[in-house]
Amino acid sequence: MLMSAEVYDFRSDNVGGVAPELLEAIVAANHGAAAPYGDDEFTGAMTARFREVFERDLVAFPVSTGTGANCIALAGLANPYGAIYCHETAHINVYECGAPEFFTGAKLVALGGAGYKLHAAELDAALALAGRGNPTRVQPFALNVTQPTDFGTLYTLDELEALSDVAHRHGLLVHLDGARFANAIAALGCTPAEMTWRAGVDIVSFGATKNGAMNAEAVLVFDPTIAAKLPFLLKRGGQVVSKARFISAQLERYLADDRWLVRARQANANAARLAQRLRAVRDVDLIGAVQINMLFARLPEVAVAALDRGPFRYYKLGRDQRFVCRHDQEPAGMDLLVSTIEEALA
Amino acid sequence: MLMSAEVYDFRSDNVGGVAPELLEAIVAANHGAAAPYGDDEFTGAMTARFREVFERDLVAFPVSTGTGANCIALAGLANPYGAIYCHETAHINVYECGAPEFFTGAKLVALGGAGYKLHAAELDAALALAGRGNPTRVQPFALNVTQPTDFGTLYTLDELEALSDVAHRHGLLVHLDGARFANAIAALGCTPAEMTWRAGVDIVSFGATKNGAMNAEAVLVFDPTIAAKLPFLLKRGGQVVSKARFISAQLERYLADDRWLVRARQANANAARLAQRLRAVRDVDLIGAVQINMLFARLPEVAVAALDRGPFRYYKLGRDQRFVCRHDQEPAGMDLLVSTIEEALA
Amino acid sequence: MLMSAEVYDFRSDNVGGVAPELLEAIVAANHGAAAPYGDDEFTGAMTARFREVFERDLVAFPVSTGTGANCIALAGLANPYGAIYCHETAHINVYECGAPEFFTGAKLVALGGAGYKLHAAELDAALALAGRGNPTRVQPFALNVTQPTDFGTLYTLDELEALSDVAHRHGLLVHLDGARFANAIAALGCTPAEMTWRAGVDIVSFGATKNGAMNAEAVLVFDPTIAAKLPFLLKRGGQVVSKARFISAQLERYLADDRWLVRARQANANAARLAQRLRAVRDVDLIGAVQINMLFARLPEVAVAALDRGPFRYYKLGRDQRFVCRHDQEPAGMDLLVSTIEEALA
Amino acid sequence: MLMSAEVYDFRSDNVGGVAPELLEAIVAANHGAAAPYGDDEFTGAMTARFREVFERDLVAFPVSTGTGANCIALAGLANPYGAIYCHETAHINVYECGAPEFFTGAKLVALGGAGYKLHAAELDAALALAGRGNPTRVQPFALNVTQPTDFGTLYTLDELEALSDVAHRHGLLVHLDGARFANAIAALGCTPAEMTWRAGVDIVSFGATKNGAMNAEAVLVFDPTIAAKLPFLLKRGGQVVSKARFISAQLERYLADDRWLVRARQANANAARLAQRLRAVRDVDLIGAVQINMLFARLPEVAVAALDRGPFRYYKLGRDQRFVCRHDQEPAGMDLLVSTIEEALA
Repeated sequence: MLMSAEVYDFRSDNVGGVAPELLEAIVAANHGAAAPYGDDEFTGAMTARFREVFERDLVAFPVSTGTGANCIALAGLANPYGAIYCHETAHINVYECGAPEFFTGAKLVALGGAGYKLHAAELDAALALAGRGNPTRVQPFALNVTQPTDFGTLYTLDELEALSDVAHRHGLLVHLDGARFANAIAALGCTPAEMTWRAGVDIVSFGATKNGAMNAEAVLVFDPTIAAKLPFLLKRGGQVVSKARFISAQLERYLADDRWLVRARQANANAARLAQRLRAVRDVDLIGAVQINMLFARLPEVAVAALDRGPFRYYKLGRDQRFVCRHDQEPAGMDLLVSTIEEALA
Repeated sequence: MLMSAEVYDFRSDNVGGVAPELLEAIVAANHGAAAPYGDDEFTGAMTARFREVFERDLVAFPVSTGTGANCIALAGLANPYGAIYCHETAHINVYECGAPEFFTGAKLVALGGAGYKLHAAELDAALALAGRGNPTRVQPFALNVTQPTDFGTLYTLDELEALSDVAHRHGLLVHLDGARFANAIAALGCTPAEMTWRAGVDIVSFGATKNGAMNAEAVLVFDPTIAAKLPFLLKRGGQVVSKARFISAQLERYLADDRWLVRARQANANAARLAQRLRAVRDVDLIGAVQINMLFARLPEVAVAALDRGPFRYYKLGRDQRFVCRHDQEPAGMDLLVSTIEEALA
Repeated sequence: MLMSAEVYDFRSDNVGGVAPELLEAIVAANHGAAAPYGDDEFTGAMTARFREVFERDLVAFPVSTGTGANCIALAGLANPYGAIYCHETAHINVYECGAPEFFTGAKLVALGGAGYKLHAAELDAALALAGRGNPTRVQPFALNVTQPTDFGTLYTLDELEALSDVAHRHGLLVHLDGARFANAIAALGCTPAEMTWRAGVDIVSFGATKNGAMNAEAVLVFDPTIAAKLPFLLKRGGQVVSKARFISAQLERYLADDRWLVRARQANANAARLAQRLRAVRDVDLIGAVQINMLFARLPEVAVAALDRGPFRYYKLGRDQRFVCRHDQEPAGMDLLVSTIEEALA
Repeated sequence: MLMSAEVYDFRSDNVGGVAPELLEAIVAANHGAAAPYGDDEFTGAMTARFREVFERDLVAFPVSTGTGANCIALAGLANPYGAIYCHETAHINVYECGAPEFFTGAKLVALGGAGYKLHAAELDAALALAGRGNPTRVQPFALNVTQPTDFGTLYTLDELEALSDVAHRHGLLVHLDGARFANAIAALGCTPAEMTWRAGVDIVSFGATKNGAMNAEAVLVFDPTIAAKLPFLLKRGGQVVSKARFISAQLERYLADDRWLVRARQANANAARLAQRLRAVRDVDLIGAVQINMLFARLPEVAVAALDRGPFRYYKLGRDQRFVCRHDQEPAGMDLLVSTIEEALA
């Protein structure tokens, strides 16, 4: 599909390019020979940087896809007759074509929950009925929490901690799908440690691609016993990139200063500003609060038709529309989006 | 593992960096928004280029790992109670931690064969005993041919064609694992078409990473019915990269002129030259002919000990040693390797 | 767990024994040699009998477990990135420890629905949102209908047909889980043909164990292309019994006259009579209508406590109680059950 | 396929019927209600009997197929990136349509070995090259030993112990596929304990079907940690029969006196006698010693043609022929087999 320069793309943050400093890191890593498959100095430096930023010991595994990160993380926790609990709108439940089931052999048990979020009391009730020890029932081993959710909502640190407590009490470990990790940190104003292991999270899919990296994600493992299994699961899953240095160098650089947070804050701010302007338009309904860099609207049909004639890209979900802002979302594009809607509704 | 500049690395061609023109292609692709997951103009251009170079219609899917390419290609051919025939030394049989079995659900049936190669008559005999139609036996659906083999040997075009004929006669489709596709083309002096579909190959893992790309491989599918399944298999396998443009742009550029072949020829020539010099050393035995960019030796222990003291990296396989040359293998390193061995044996 | 003669068991119909004529069929089959694995005369005769009773051509595969029958049937329909739609209370979704997912590699998509039943309009709406052709979404291939449901409710023939129509329109095939096939036929007063292929059912798990057989079930396949795959799937699933004649002989005899229906009618009648008597007890609430041989109650705690002191076996589901009647349910046991409850509540 | 009374069947021991005392046990178990799924008194009594006969604590799980027993046993030992070592002629490697790979997710690594047997030194050498700890290589977790082998050969107790020692030293557990357990015990004159746990075997597929039972096998587990996983693996594998009492009652009765061994000795003796008579025929070559109840011959074509005209059933393996004797093999059939061959070669 041809993308001309004049198109304003609100489909997702992964339509964006690569941040300058990360491209520089790639170029800088392109020097001499390096051991393949992650046994290189760049991967070592990346792990050191993750330990520093997360304020504890951990092992970091570079991968090139978010689905890969989620699946390997969950496979590291899996038993052969298990269940993963998640929200019914979780990315792993809806948009990964069964990859989590394939990599883990587990069944996904999807719960509802307002705000696209799991709620501790509801999780507790569901797990109480899960049939622990009953051979006719799959045995829960993991809780998947998507932070932020695919619908742009955020768990508070208290909510995360409450979910982890319930999960641990029932014998589950906690996986955090952080495809938009930076946007969540930027919005909550907390530290990576606070949003993960201090809140009871056991394993993390750390996404950087949606925030300026070139196909660079990491699985972060806090428990060394689980970490020892991952090299095998990664290889068996076709997730070990040959020249891992080019992912690791990006991630090391990504965390080396605050630019990852600056970008995430800017993306969030773009969405907030866009929401503010759209709310001012009569007949425009935004769905829910805008907590990160995405907003959902139910526009009148005439406005949708106008957008579809214009130079815009965005996703439709039934009668709703999703707009995602990047840190470098073009101001002209946001202006034009608002004015197009305004004119259509005038 | 720290790699200092003074180390000469003969472990594998994937310890090398990224070719300048491919890095340029990445930088050039980093402009504006692009649809994610391969629905972008760069992937379209890549497919067009593959069609041109392979002289026929095909569908090309970008992936970031060779194991991923092999597994998705084979999964595209699989039935749920199947067998993949391959050489006992095939990469998919030995070095992918069971990934092909995981992705396909199939059993790998490994055959012997001189020169690390399958032989048509032996394959025919094995397939005749495979129990087609017998429910107690796995049902063969694919033949895997690694070209060149992991031991640096090459199938002639006639050998490939004979294998394909046998495979097709028994109802199998043919997968070519071309992790070092360029080295084979360079050595045989044939066209990509001649080494693949004209020789009866049905699906190809096209590797570029070992020849200068940054984690860029492609699955090439000639049959549209199989191609229609691959988007789902890729997603379910965690193999769909978000910003696919950065793989596709490399592959498009890779095939745009002859530099990929120039590099492969140079790598092959480096190995040939190194082999020539080592053969001149008394007490050095090279194992087999050197057909591409790798050579195998059985060095006296004193020579191995000398190498292990020096600034070299290489792989040991039991009592043998493997040396792989890149196109940009340092001449000083090759000189020092030879002189170190000579001095140890003097 | 020791079962003394004085215990009255309402847990499930599979606590019962083997019907006399089926035991006779086993004894009669124990004569001379017979080809193993279903290639015997008894299996041939069983298939002929199924064809007669179902009034059409079909292939019948004997298996020893209901879970095995369900899983093989569904695996015969499966694609490698698929989804099976079912009710959230379906046996395959709740009580088979993930076996259907394991055998098919598919994801179960569970829908709600009053009366523990799927409803055609709701299924239609769900399938419309399933993302046919979208590689991020699992692709639906089968609808599972449990008839009767695990909660003792029944689909009418019209309801079955409406569900099949929706399923077929969306490209799904229909699997009927007939663990209590006989009870449904007895209750509906229809023919096996009417409840299966004439209503659009494509593949059937035909259960006989719960109605007097000794671990004897069958997968019934109407489509020869699917049937051709099943011998392999059965073997790979460990479902091919060596001396198949002892299952096949039972099933042939089972269908040879009306005794299977007589038993099912008696079991249903026992439950109806028990329900009638319990409804007459003040403070006893039965949940829903009693359509087959099981009834659900929410007894006062004092009644539950009384039952637990008595010589009864039954299942608790949260605050509810399930009672299942066999054709040979002891009248004394039913009398005692009612009187125990009456006395507790007096 | 119609089997008339006049056919003499040497195909396999599973063409035979059910021993009288086992049929009696089935009939005796058909009394009153019993908890389903193995939670019944008969299964308890079976386990007690296994403990007595095997002279140690263990857990016994009843299943209805030998493939099921093998697969569940191996799945109980499996890791998610593992390898099972076995002989290239092992039943699990050749005749189970990939079921072991399906249930375990593991790769089967098949070794050669004279006499269709694994040899400790060769196993040791293979495991030394298996790449323990190397993420590109599947990690061995189990050794499968078929005793007796599918070719009628036997491991001595010393050979079993030597294999177990090697396996344990390399971190593998040992699975014994005892489809013809009784024939091996009868031939070796040892105790079940000596042939299993005292020789280092960790888990056993105990077959009774080929020696007079009606689809009755058991998985015997000596380690409680592994045993705790099996109920889930059995359910997920569709291997939990509803009315387990009819398998358990057979197995309990089977081990209650020496009749199982009397039958096995008679079957072995039948084969020995037949072999003796065939060896006396000029131009008849028997292949290998006859250690249990099967013999292999390479008959002249004219003899094969004569057999094929006669009322015989037997298996052909390429140019060889296999004859298996049951305990109740008809003397007239054995006489006629010999005389038919003699006349053809006269």
